[in-house]
Amino acid sequence: MRYGALEAGGTKMVLAVADENRKILARESIPTRTPGETMPRMIAFFRKHPVDALGIGSFGPLDLHPGSPSFGCITETPKLPWRHYPLLPAFREALGIPCALDTDVNAAALCEARLGAARGAQNCVYVTVGTGIGAGVVCEGKLVHGLMHPEWGHMLLCPRGDDPMPQGICPYHGACLEGLASGPAMEKRWGAPAKELPPDHPAWELEAHYLAQMCVTAVMTVSPEKIVLGGGVMGQKQLFPLIRRETMRLLGGYIACLENADGLIVPPACYPDSGLIGALLLAERAAK
Amino acid sequence: MRYGALEAGGTKMVLAVADENRKILARESIPTRTPGETMPRMIAFFRKHPVDALGIGSFGPLDLHPGSPSFGCITETPKLPWRHYPLLPAFREALGIPCALDTDVNAAALCEARLGAARGAQNCVYVTVGTGIGAGVVCEGKLVHGLMHPEWGHMLLCPRGDDPMPQGICPYHGACLEGLASGPAMEKRWGAPAKELPPDHPAWELEAHYLAQMCVTAVMTVSPEKIVLGGGVMGQKQLFPLIRRETMRLLGGYIACLENADGLIVPPACYPDSGLIGALLLAERAAK
Repeated sequence: MRYGALEAGGTKMVLAVADENRKILARESIPTRTPGETMPRMIAFFRKHPVDALGIGSFGPLDLHPGSPSFGCITETPKLPWRHYPLLPAFREALGIPCALDTDVNAAALCEARLGAARGAQNCVYVTVGTGIGAGVVCEGKLVHGLMHPEWGHMLLCPRGDDPMPQGICPYHGACLEGLASGPAMEKRWGAPAKELPPDHPAWELEAHYLAQMCVTAVMTVSPEKIVLGGGVMGQKQLFPLIRRETMRLLGGYIACLENADGLIVPPACYPDSGLIGALLLAERAAK
Repeated sequence: MRYGALEAGGTKMVLAVADENRKILARESIPTRTPGETMPRMIAFFRKHPVDALGIGSFGPLDLHPGSPSFGCITETPKLPWRHYPLLPAFREALGIPCALDTDVNAAALCEARLGAARGAQNCVYVTVGTGIGAGVVCEGKLVHGLMHPEWGHMLLCPRGDDPMPQGICPYHGACLEGLASGPAMEKRWGAPAKELPPDHPAWELEAHYLAQMCVTAVMTVSPEKIVLGGGVMGQKQLFPLIRRETMRLLGGYIACLENADGLIVPPACYPDSGLIGALLLAERAAK
C-alpha cells in the first residue's frame, strides 16, 4: 500500500507519498496559486507517484459535515480563488481513490497525539502560532469538528493594561487571540518582525501572557493532557518556560493535580511535518 | 431491570429508581451532611428499592481516571467532610452492583444530548449558572474528561469597563466566569439576590454579556451544535434573547454558518432533572 498526503496551506502545498511504515518515498512543495494552476500540478504528482488513498490537511474554513451538499469544500476563506472550492471532491474525482479531508491543525493534532509529543493522550490540543493562530482538538481520542470546527485563534482574550496595542488587529474581533498574539500582531505592536526581536525584549513576556490565557482556557474547557504549541512564533524557545510559568500563575492553584506545566505545555515532536504526517494518518484511515 | 440514579449536590442528594423505560418508580431527596450521616441513608434507599446498576452524577472535583488509585473519589472539594471521600467505591462495596460516576454537569450534558434540548447533537455543552458555574461537555458523541474534567466556571473573562465589581469574587481567579457571573457574584455586585432584581435591571444585560463571552469561547474551542444553559440564574428567561444577541455581536460575523443564535443557545428540556436522568443513563451504561 502507498499513502498520499497533502498539507494545503495558503502559501504552499506540501505533497508526499509514503509506504506502510510511513517512510516518505517522494515529496514536493508547490506554491499555492489559483485552483486552476495548482490543482493540475498536485494531481500530476499523485499520477506520477500513485497512491491507494489520500489524506488532506487543509487551511479552512472547511465544510466537514458528511451529509452536507458542500461536504469537502473550502468555505468562506479570505484566499478568494479558493473560496467554495470543492477540494475533496476534486481529488476524489481526479484520482478515483479513497480521500479524507480535515483541517491542517486537526491533522497536526492527530499526528502529535498518535506519534508525537502527545503520544498516548486521549485529550490534547495542537495550537499553531504564526501568521494566523489555529488549533486542532482531540477529545477522548476523537478529532473534534462540531458545528463547524474549532477556531481557537478567535477566542476572546483580555488585553493587558500595559499592552501598547490592546485593540488587537483581527478584522472581526480586534482583541482575540489571533488579533493580539499572532506574528503579524507582534510585528504591528513592536514595529519589527517577531523573529527580529531579541529574546529579552518585553514582547516575549507579553506574548507568553496571551498564550497563557489561551492555555488556561484550554485547561478549563477541554482539560487536555497535553497542549502542543507549534508554528513560526513558537520557534522562539524562550517562550515555553514563560508560558508555563504564566499559565500556572493564572490557574491560581485551582487545578490541584497540576504541580507545574512542564509536561502539559510542550513543543511538537514532528514539527514542521506534524500536519503532513497527520494527513498520512488520515489517508490510512480512508483506506480502511 | 431497575436502574438507580443519584444526583449528589452540595445541599441535597436526589435519589431515584426507574424501570427500563426510565419511568421513575421511587424518588427521595436527602440533605447533604457528612458522609457518616448521609451515606447510610442513601444506601438504605437503594436497599429498600433494589436496582441492578447505579449511576451517579456528583459535585466535584472527582478523580475519573480508571487506572488511578483514587478512581471514583471526590478530590479537593471545599465541602470538607467529603474531601477525598471514595464515593464510587463506597456504593460499589455496599450494593455489590455495577456503578458509574461522572460529574453532575456531565450527567446533565449526557441527558440533554440524548433526550433533551441537544438531542441528536454529537457536540454540545451543558452549562449550569447558579451558586457556582460548571459545564458538561460532549464532543463527537463522548463525554469529555481529560486531565481532570472541564471546569468552565473558571475560564478567565474580560471584565467590562462599566462593571461596578470588575475584580470578581472567585477566591482563585477573581474575574473568572464564576467570579463575575454566578448567583453570588450578582448578589455581591448589586446588593440583592439575583432573583429579586427586576427584569429590566442593568444587572441582566451585564450578566448576558459575561455569559455571551463564555458562549463565544464555547463556539471557538469545541464548536458545539447546542449550548444548553440551565441552573437557577437561567430561570430568568429574559436572559436568553440578551445572551443570543450579545453572542452574535461578539462573534462579529466570523462563523458564517451561524445566522443567529436562536437554535444554538437554548434552555434545557429536562430541567431540573437533567442531572438525575443523566445519572440514570450512566446506570444503563454501567449495566452493559
